[in-house]
Parts: sequence; structure tokens; C-alpha cells
Amino acid sequence: MADKIESIAILGGTGDLGGGLARQWSRAGYRILIGSRTLEKGKAAAASLLAEFPDLNVTGHENLDAAEQADIVVLTVPFAHQISTLETVKSALTGKILIDVTVPLVPPKVGTVQLPPGGSAAMAAQALLGDAAQVVSAFQNVGAQHLREDHKIACDVLVSGDKRTARDTVIELVEAVGLRGWHAGPLANSVAAEAMTSVLITINRLHKIDGSGIVITGEPVKA
Amino acid sequence: MADKIESIAILGGTGDLGGGLARQWSRAGYRILIGSRTLEKGKAAAASLLAEFPDLNVTGHENLDAAEQADIVVLTVPFAHQISTLETVKSALTGKILIDVTVPLVPPKVGTVQLPPGGSAAMAAQALLGDAAQVVSAFQNVGAQHLREDHKIACDVLVSGDKRTARDTVIELVEAVGLRGWHAGPLANSVAAEAMTSVLITINRLHKIDGSGIVITGEPVKA
Repeated sequence: MADKIESIAILGGTGDLGGGLARQWSRAGYRILIGSRTLEKGKAAAASLLAEFPDLNVTGHENLDAAEQADIVVLTVPFAHQISTLETVKSALTGKILIDVTVPLVPPKVGTVQLPPGGSAAMAAQALLGDAAQVVSAFQNVGAQHLREDHKIACDVLVSGDKRTARDTVIELVEAVGLRGWHAGPLANSVAAEAMTSVLITINRLHKIDGSGIVITGEPVKA
Repeated sequence: MADKIESIAILGGTGDLGGGLARQWSRAGYRILIGSRTLEKGKAAAASLLAEFPDLNVTGHENLDAAEQADIVVLTVPFAHQISTLETVKSALTGKILIDVTVPLVPPKVGTVQLPPGGSAAMAAQALLGDAAQVVSAFQNVGAQHLREDHKIACDVLVSGDKRTARDTVIELVEAVGLRGWHAGPLANSVAAEAMTSVLITINRLHKIDGSGIVITGEPVKA
């Protein structure tokens, strides 16, 4: 595992959330490798970001190439492509952290919790990858608009994973995009964040809220 | 179903959260029936509340008696007693709303999400009760200290249930104890709140927070 994270592969970096993370992390000084199913789409996504923000350190790649070159890999593809994308890049993940952003939404009822058998999408990812890679679940509850500077809303990030050091690394990356990250416990606890996204979709609809999120409250324990 | 809720049975009203709800709802003008496994324990719990707050409208009962007399029934017993308590009171729940507060914590790893097969404790309750009663899930993420006036912390309540009118009734009761209630969607979405409790327990431990909770953020959609 890289001692210090300098480069980040974002698989599915052509989406709204992937693009938002790419922009924020690049501004924070990380080298970003946008991955897509084809080199052309990856390059187009990178070019689109560079057209808007010419100073970003962003390049476009095919998913496997991006995963091989980066210190850490972030998966932001739709649920339907999660497993197939992981199978493509599995060989490149040995010794690395995979940040799984997958939310197992099942259309048309995306406002109803429908987690995969066995627990969560992140647990399915870890099962597929085995012990060679550390899966850490994060960012499920962050709408893409939370990463736009003109639409900043408080939203915390629950970070689940079986190794505390891996969660520490991810929390550092969460803070690099200006959000608050929390140790949410072992990977089994990714169920909470994955399920919460359907709840937030329901709240948006029934309470007419724009991009609802969650914030953790509480007071520090008195010494 | 009672058109207007005037009386509330709290099964497990001898616990911290049940006692806190009893106090707040009683102050809000509801008649409270504390239920316990024995009449003696129910009466003792009611007496204990009355000793502290003599003006409360609280009586003690055996669980089935409390459920029969009340307009709405709240289940706040430990997970291990959820199903056996429901079997005891099932006959009294026809046409009523059951507010299920159960959190399926499995000692010793209460900080690890371990939901029951089939989804959630609330879904198990609905399966046991059938269509005769409406199960609504609420209050899983509220620590008992949130109901004490000297320790008020922001904590929202996710309200899941298959009928919107039943959720409306419960949200009214949530607001009566001074908390914000949200339509969290169908009962399947109770997975999110039940799982979140283990996450909050983990956050309390690893971030040294006293009684962490969640708050929903977001802005009203512009007309």
C-alpha cells in the first residue's frame, strides 16, 4: 500500500460525483487519473474537466490502466456496472485501497432500500477482491451538488472498512474535498450508508428538499 | 385506527428511552400507559416517573393490558425480547399503529451492523403481525439523553412505514417530543435507521463523542 497517496484513479470519473471528486482532489494537489470503459471516453472526460478548469492535473485512461498507475482507486460507476468493472481491474488492486462509492439503487424504486444479498455492495466488492485489496466504503450520501462551490451544503461522509489505517487514509481524502469524514466501523457497517441513500432520495421527494444529506451531531466526551 | 391519538402505550417503558418518551409525551398532553412484563414492574416504572414529575398522566400496566387500552402502541424493549413481546400483545394491535423502536444490536459487537435475516427488526415485526396492524419504525438513532431537557442535542428521527397516513401520525408524535421527524419511505427503509445505530455507537467510541446522532440537511426546493 502506498505510504503517501499522490495519485488517485477515479473509475467512472465521467459521472457527476466522479467528476466532482476529480476536480476537488486535483485542486487539493493530487494527480487524478480518470478511468472509463474506453480510453476515448476517459480522455473526453479529462478534456471536459480541463476545459472548465485548465489548471487541473487530470488525465484520461481506460479503467485498468488508471487503476494500475494510481496509488489508490475510487469506484464511482453505477451499481449495474460495479462487479464487471471490478473484474476488469482486479489484478491492479493488489496492495491498494479501493474506495467503493457504489450505491445499490435498483430502478425504478430507487427510494426503496434494496440491498444485495449478503449485506451491501461494498461487502460484495470485498468478497470479489479477496484479501489482496482493502475495500473502504465512502461518499454514498453525498450528492454531486455538494462538491460544487456554488452549492455547498453540509454533508458528512461515513467511512466503513475493516482496517482502521485504511479508513484513516480515506478520511484524509474526504477532508481534502472539504467534507467531514467519520470512522463508521467495519465494512459490514457500509449497510447504513448504502441504505441511507434511498432514504435521502425519499426525503428529497416527500419533503421537497434539494439534495438532502446527513450530518453527525454530538458533543465531545468531557475529559 | 384511532382518528386522534390521546393515549400511548409504551411497552418497555421501564427503559431509559421508553421513560424519556413517556415523560415528554405526558408533558405534551398524552395519557401514557407504561407496559411491562408484569403489572408490578409496570406500576413501579410509573411510580418512579411520578416521583420525579408528580404532574404526569402516567399509569403502570402489564404489556397486553397497556396495548389494549391505548390508541397507539410503542415498542421499546431490547431486541432479544422484541418478538416474544409482540406475540404477547398481538391480539391488541388490530387496527392500531405499532411504533417499533427496536434496534437489532447483537452483543458483544453492538458497533457492528448485524441486521436480522429478511431485512430489519421492524420488517420482522410486520411479518409477525400481518396486515392487521401498521408497523412504523422510528426513534432508533435517538439516545435517551436527547430526551432530557438538560442535555438537548440535535437528533432527527427517520420514520419508515408502508402507509403515509401512519407515518404522518408518528411524525406528529416525534414533533411532540421536540424532535424533527422525516418521511423515510416504506418499512423496508427501516434498514437504514436500524443499521445507523451501530454506526453511531462506533462513532461515539472512536471519535469520543457523547451520544452522537444524525441530522438531515438540505435546502427546500425553490418554487
